[in-house]
Amino acid sequence: MKLKPSQITRKLESLFLNNHVKRVYRKPPGQMPGTAIHTGAKRVENVTMTIHDFDLSHYDVIPIEKVEKSEPYILNKSKTWIQVCGLHDVDKLRTIWDYFELHPLIQEDIVSTSQRPKVEFYEDAVFIVMRLITHKTEPNGTINLHTEQVSIVLGKNYVLSFQETDEPIFEPILKRLQQQTTRLRKLGPDYLAYALMDTIVDHYFHSLDLVSISIEEVEEKIIDKPEERHLQKIHALRRDMIFLRKSVWSLRDGINSMIRDDSPLISNEVKIFLRDVYDHVVQVIDSIETSREMIIGLYDMYMSALSIKMNEVMKVLTIIATIFIPLTFIAGIYGMNFDPEASPFNMPELNWYFGYPISLIFMLSIALGLLLFFKRKGWF
Amino acid sequence: MKLKPSQITRKLESLFLNNHVKRVYRKPPGQMPGTAIHTGAKRVENVTMTIHDFDLSHYDVIPIEKVEKSEPYILNKSKTWIQVCGLHDVDKLRTIWDYFELHPLIQEDIVSTSQRPKVEFYEDAVFIVMRLITHKTEPNGTINLHTEQVSIVLGKNYVLSFQETDEPIFEPILKRLQQQTTRLRKLGPDYLAYALMDTIVDHYFHSLDLVSISIEEVEEKIIDKPEERHLQKIHALRRDMIFLRKSVWSLRDGINSMIRDDSPLISNEVKIFLRDVYDHVVQVIDSIETSREMIIGLYDMYMSALSIKMNEVMKVLTIIATIFIPLTFIAGIYGMNFDPEASPFNMPELNWYFGYPISLIFMLSIALGLLLFFKRKGWF
Amino acid sequence: MKLKPSQITRKLESLFLNNHVKRVYRKPPGQMPGTAIHTGAKRVENVTMTIHDFDLSHYDVIPIEKVEKSEPYILNKSKTWIQVCGLHDVDKLRTIWDYFELHPLIQEDIVSTSQRPKVEFYEDAVFIVMRLITHKTEPNGTINLHTEQVSIVLGKNYVLSFQETDEPIFEPILKRLQQQTTRLRKLGPDYLAYALMDTIVDHYFHSLDLVSISIEEVEEKIIDKPEERHLQKIHALRRDMIFLRKSVWSLRDGINSMIRDDSPLISNEVKIFLRDVYDHVVQVIDSIETSREMIIGLYDMYMSALSIKMNEVMKVLTIIATIFIPLTFIAGIYGMNFDPEASPFNMPELNWYFGYPISLIFMLSIALGLLLFFKRKGWF
Amino acid sequence: MKLKPSQITRKLESLFLNNHVKRVYRKPPGQMPGTAIHTGAKRVENVTMTIHDFDLSHYDVIPIEKVEKSEPYILNKSKTWIQVCGLHDVDKLRTIWDYFELHPLIQEDIVSTSQRPKVEFYEDAVFIVMRLITHKTEPNGTINLHTEQVSIVLGKNYVLSFQETDEPIFEPILKRLQQQTTRLRKLGPDYLAYALMDTIVDHYFHSLDLVSISIEEVEEKIIDKPEERHLQKIHALRRDMIFLRKSVWSLRDGINSMIRDDSPLISNEVKIFLRDVYDHVVQVIDSIETSREMIIGLYDMYMSALSIKMNEVMKVLTIIATIFIPLTFIAGIYGMNFDPEASPFNMPELNWYFGYPISLIFMLSIALGLLLFFKRKGWF
Amino acid sequence: MKLKPSQITRKLESLFLNNHVKRVYRKPPGQMPGTAIHTGAKRVENVTMTIHDFDLSHYDVIPIEKVEKSEPYILNKSKTWIQVCGLHDVDKLRTIWDYFELHPLIQEDIVSTSQRPKVEFYEDAVFIVMRLITHKTEPNGTINLHTEQVSIVLGKNYVLSFQETDEPIFEPILKRLQQQTTRLRKLGPDYLAYALMDTIVDHYFHSLDLVSISIEEVEEKIIDKPEERHLQKIHALRRDMIFLRKSVWSLRDGINSMIRDDSPLISNEVKIFLRDVYDHVVQVIDSIETSREMIIGLYDMYMSALSIKMNEVMKVLTIIATIFIPLTFIAGIYGMNFDPEASPFNMPELNWYFGYPISLIFMLSIALGLLLFFKRKGWF
Repeated sequence: MKLKPSQITRKLESLFLNNHVKRVYRKPPGQMPGTAIHTGAKRVENVTMTIHDFDLSHYDVIPIEKVEKSEPYILNKSKTWIQVCGLHDVDKLRTIWDYFELHPLIQEDIVSTSQRPKVEFYEDAVFIVMRLITHKTEPNGTINLHTEQVSIVLGKNYVLSFQETDEPIFEPILKRLQQQTTRLRKLGPDYLAYALMDTIVDHYFHSLDLVSISIEEVEEKIIDKPEERHLQKIHALRRDMIFLRKSVWSLRDGINSMIRDDSPLISNEVKIFLRDVYDHVVQVIDSIETSREMIIGLYDMYMSALSIKMNEVMKVLTIIATIFIPLTFIAGIYGMNFDPEASPFNMPELNWYFGYPISLIFMLSIALGLLLFFKRKGWF
Repeated sequence: MKLKPSQITRKLESLFLNNHVKRVYRKPPGQMPGTAIHTGAKRVENVTMTIHDFDLSHYDVIPIEKVEKSEPYILNKSKTWIQVCGLHDVDKLRTIWDYFELHPLIQEDIVSTSQRPKVEFYEDAVFIVMRLITHKTEPNGTINLHTEQVSIVLGKNYVLSFQETDEPIFEPILKRLQQQTTRLRKLGPDYLAYALMDTIVDHYFHSLDLVSISIEEVEEKIIDKPEERHLQKIHALRRDMIFLRKSVWSLRDGINSMIRDDSPLISNEVKIFLRDVYDHVVQVIDSIETSREMIIGLYDMYMSALSIKMNEVMKVLTIIATIFIPLTFIAGIYGMNFDPEASPFNMPELNWYFGYPISLIFMLSIALGLLLFFKRKGWF
Repeated sequence: MKLKPSQITRKLESLFLNNHVKRVYRKPPGQMPGTAIHTGAKRVENVTMTIHDFDLSHYDVIPIEKVEKSEPYILNKSKTWIQVCGLHDVDKLRTIWDYFELHPLIQEDIVSTSQRPKVEFYEDAVFIVMRLITHKTEPNGTINLHTEQVSIVLGKNYVLSFQETDEPIFEPILKRLQQQTTRLRKLGPDYLAYALMDTIVDHYFHSLDLVSISIEEVEEKIIDKPEERHLQKIHALRRDMIFLRKSVWSLRDGINSMIRDDSPLISNEVKIFLRDVYDHVVQVIDSIETSREMIIGLYDMYMSALSIKMNEVMKVLTIIATIFIPLTFIAGIYGMNFDPEASPFNMPELNWYFGYPISLIFMLSIALGLLLFFKRKGWF
Repeated sequence: MKLKPSQITRKLESLFLNNHVKRVYRKPPGQMPGTAIHTGAKRVENVTMTIHDFDLSHYDVIPIEKVEKSEPYILNKSKTWIQVCGLHDVDKLRTIWDYFELHPLIQEDIVSTSQRPKVEFYEDAVFIVMRLITHKTEPNGTINLHTEQVSIVLGKNYVLSFQETDEPIFEPILKRLQQQTTRLRKLGPDYLAYALMDTIVDHYFHSLDLVSISIEEVEEKIIDKPEERHLQKIHALRRDMIFLRKSVWSLRDGINSMIRDDSPLISNEVKIFLRDVYDHVVQVIDSIETSREMIIGLYDMYMSALSIKMNEVMKVLTIIATIFIPLTFIAGIYGMNFDPEASPFNMPELNWYFGYPISLIFMLSIALGLLLFFKRKGWF
Repeated sequence: MKLKPSQITRKLESLFLNNHVKRVYRKPPGQMPGTAIHTGAKRVENVTMTIHDFDLSHYDVIPIEKVEKSEPYILNKSKTWIQVCGLHDVDKLRTIWDYFELHPLIQEDIVSTSQRPKVEFYEDAVFIVMRLITHKTEPNGTINLHTEQVSIVLGKNYVLSFQETDEPIFEPILKRLQQQTTRLRKLGPDYLAYALMDTIVDHYFHSLDLVSISIEEVEEKIIDKPEERHLQKIHALRRDMIFLRKSVWSLRDGINSMIRDDSPLISNEVKIFLRDVYDHVVQVIDSIETSREMIIGLYDMYMSALSIKMNEVMKVLTIIATIFIPLTFIAGIYGMNFDPEASPFNMPELNWYFGYPISLIFMLSIALGLLLFFKRKGWF
């Protein structure tokens, strides 16, 4: 018996809803490549499309339903950015894809929301896939990292961006677009694509900051008193770092290829800025590696703290037991019922005048001797 | 005394039948290279051969016994795919090899079923070896990964595929072949080879999904209560990942060489699709690495959970023992038989009016004191 | 609910003040690149600027307030070094930036004080970012590493240096500048830039020396008696090494690019000296790796020392308990109240003539037998 | 005082005889390079030399004593293979070296039997050093790996092979040489060299098979019951893998250089076969890495199995001790000798009608309560 | 408060004298590069300089005090080797440096005795820094590795060698120089430089041999009985390997650059020999890595041996305690003083005819039952 794909999917879906985001989730094997099937969960109610049309002289924002109606904006000489939020309505997305004649593999990748970051050069477009990482503080104070796929298509005169949710991450860019003097208005669509990428990369730093805070907090608590939930926290942090690294790692090569490629779509002026993003990505990767080592260090520290506590417990047991076991034995001796009257050798101590005090003093001196022995060993 | 090859083989065979698939299994040393000897277990009853002959206008499927009889299908201008299931009947296979004049080393590799994945360029053919990974759910609920070697020979006008079993993994491709408008019918045999490779790679994702589910399940159970069988499960997962990685790792370079090679057998159009497969393989390798780290994390977690449980056991023992050992000692004291009549110093407490209650209260206060001490230490 | 950036910042700020220097700290996401915002803590009261104007014939040091007033020094043929201490007053810094027309990204990097070390080539300047590492001995004897960012801009006829504090690290260079015959006076501004870099790299060796001493000290103490605070010291050392490595690692490639680049700003004569700095950086990285392995070794040693101590504790417990438990049992036997008068089988030993001595000798021989057993096992 | 070289040598020799083959064993420092000194143990009685002279029309095998006497075989047009078994008689070997004018460094390497595998190109010869790995089953069932150095010199018309023992590993090649139609007879001496290399590489697979079997066996036993000798077995396996890897690793680059080099001594036809050997070596290295990970996994498993057993032991102790310690205390209470006649408060229970049964029931209920507590904790 | 450099130096000096040789020890930061300051300890009484003047026809050895006086030897056509032992007298060294006009950076590196190995090409000289490793057996039988820096300057017609001590490591070369027919006399100064390097590399093998012996010895002892001093030995071995690796690692690239460089100072004939040294260095690095893995394996083995011993200790305690605790409880029961006369329910067993024997048999059967239980569990 084999597990049916649908069963696997259902299981994975439930893991996904419980925030286990590390899933690999794809179309069934053997299916036609270039088939656009949305493989993620529906994360917004409606797919919204917004046209941002701008050049040095104007900046218009128009929500659209059908891409054909907005053809004037696309055809005119000014730069056009179509921002799409929500990926579950493939038919709606297809209207855009068909209009811009995107390659089937681009289409497939936009809606297969478990892509690794990459930059691909097609004849008339650059296709960029990135993972946006945001964080949410749960009511109980824990901070969870969330991820969504953001795809950017950079064409001759336009930029298309596709994101899974309507998270307002590009808000600052909209504000900058409203100012006439910014480079965004002056330079070409490649600078806009750069700005979008830069914004996403900037978010990584904030997620890393949060992880750093968590590491510090756990570290302080472990030194104080190691508990099982700290172990789970460390494990969760480890997962987060694996997950973060996976989201960023391959981006480095992607951006590097943008800097080194001769594509006419990317100007030299923007390449200097891309070099800056590249530098940031390298810095993020560095920080991730650093955090991973810190987390491994945390784990080692946790285990040693456990060992230390164990040692302490064992010492208490050993000290108490080692002191009282011989004493109890002596008390047991004088609790024996040998008949003193049957023979002068039978426990004559019981009838000695100072029998009891002597035995007590004897016990006391044994106890003190053992205490001294443990003291010498440095056990307390 | 040396272990005879046959003994080794028998031992390995038994390991193999018990699903220990990591075996390296080959022809005896010193034998002529290019000797085709089937080195795997017989996994289907009969070797079956099927010709798929197709172009834009037609698609025929003909089971064949002898390759000579089907020469018309091969010689005509349409594309031909000969699908072979089962590798134990080397004589039957040789009829095909001889007809297509395959290099002896290709012949040897097709039936030596422990090859690592590779892509080799010969003068008039591209030889591709891949490992298909499927899974089976056992009656007891465990999921086992199975592997078989699939070899693909891509020639000028034909594709030969050799698989160990008759697992219907290429079913979806057959369905797509029946539709006249698909790229499979339009493009050359290189696209068919690509489609076969893509299907095999897609299966990796499903195996990885199952591993992810297992990891999640084990993780939850370990947090709850670590048991020895979880350790064995972790160990098995670790083996699976080592095995998966070995099956995929070298494929990356192989596909890369297909993309970069100038062989006339592979068109530029198909290379874009191969780039997609390449990307998937990299993604699979990424996921395998991620899973391996997760499994190592699981192991660490298991060991810490064990330590925590141990600590807990020790604490219970220490608390109980530490409280009662001194009390028992005191009870032992008053169980001594010193004769109170022999001297006024001999256990006068035994005759005190409140001797017994006082001793009980004394014991109780010691117990409470120790409990307080443990409480302060944070032991419960 | 999301954690507001300001809250994160505040948390990070408090970590920072408590000497947790591994922070990643940056401008909010989406902001215009090239925006110069000081992201570190204010570490000196006032931003001071000093002009060092020198050639073979003279050397003048002039503290300045406004860069325009010192234009003569800059425009003349002699070499000019403007040393800036303190980065929090961006407006003041901007006067220099504007005067020398630095690229906005250089401006941003100078005041974003968590850059990784790098060397970037612009059209008319080389931009070098390094991390200076100094150490302070706290009143309690612990040694803390401190870091600050030092940026160097090497132009055609000038060098600009920006540091966070007024730490007098370049003091020895000032002294050498006063001597007329030094290479500093003879060679161009590239040699000055080299000298600054060399000084910073030399400081790494001193930090590493201190770490080496700490490692030796901890090692000796652990062998003597492992304590929890040693574990924390090891953990702190580990963090220091991660942090040091991060500060130096990427510098290697940076300096290498200076040696290999054809920039007219760096002469061949200076490149031989840069090769020397490169060599030192490699040596520092080597030493860091060595120290890291030593620290891991320390950790392993600590854990084994713990285990050994634990074993010792357990042996003491086991020896004492194992010897006295059987003896106490025997004493317990003869403490039973079976009535010897009810039957001749009821504890006749109690009335034997040598009953008590025999029982004592019996106990003694058991104790000696067990001691012999433990001796044979090599337990003490 | 220094350890004299002779003392070191003697120590190493004894280690060597006890099968510790990882020794580095060489000429004393400062000696003239190119000095041929046999550094291994004498492993056959006499050095034997055999000439195999063959071409398409004939195949002769002649044992020789002096190389000069066989000059006709060497000078004729047919291919000549001189097989030398035993390396301790350097004078005898020198007759061959001198005849073929081998470079002094080749001479030195042939008899220094701890070379790492390598391929070196000289003007008129290719010098190949490999390590043959064979296994022997000891009477007690353990399998030991043995190694010897095999050197191959490939010249224009001849092949020289030097091995330490007379292990008949090239037997299958001799058989193939007797058949007139094999490639060995058709192709040049380069194909013979290839065939020798292929045979040696094939032996690696058999050693790896044995290691795999050992790993499986140990794994099964550890799951069943971990014992100290398993640990030693794991340690021995680890050493074997380190040793195997060292024997194979550098061979990869060597063979690769043979494939890529333009030496006229190696034909393109043979290069295709060398590509196959290269592939096998890579596969061996892969398997070694896999086995190493499996062995590390075994070790982890062993340690966890130990911990689990420890936990079990502790639980038994804790359950028994925790149940009986309080009961013994209660029994101790009623064994106290407070005089009931001295006061009504002094142990009135002793005279109660149901005193004894009540106390027994009280003890029983405590025992049951504790059992229930442990049951709840999941301890059994 | 900062630690003064002098304090650090003093601390490091004391560590150094106690044979902690891993120190990084350098000139104070900011000092003029190319300043020759001796940074090591004084290790010979006087700096001695010896001229070896030789060609095919003669070989003269002359101890010199001032380099000028020996100018004839240097200026003549024969090859000259100036061997300097001792580095603390910089003024004396400077006479040589000045005579040969060595670059200031070479001068600095010769006396800064913590250089990593390197090969640097200057216009008219090749500068080689190596670390010589020797060993000394202490009176207590432990073997310590010692290191010193050996610098070689290879010029057109001369070789300069600088070593820290007068250790007679080049003795064998002197002997070979006395023989007229050796290559040393025939070939140029590059061959002499090669011979010096070869001698130093040969010493590595002897140090590695000693480490191998130590590893074997510790391994045997650990299997027998793990003790704390073994742990310290393992730790010391680990340090030695880290230290050895550091001394050799970068030499590989250095020698490689000598083989590949086109410097006229190194002839092709000598390059073949350098290839041999290169090979040895790679072999040393391989062996170091192998030894490191062996040492890690030792550590793991030590830890497991500790765990096994711990388990054994716990088992003895558990068996003894678990058997006697219930028995003692039963003895305690019959030691209670319930008055049999107060009620027929009060301990009637005490008056049974077979009361005592029955109780003893009961105890015995409990003990046997528990023993059987432990036997079944495989505890002994």
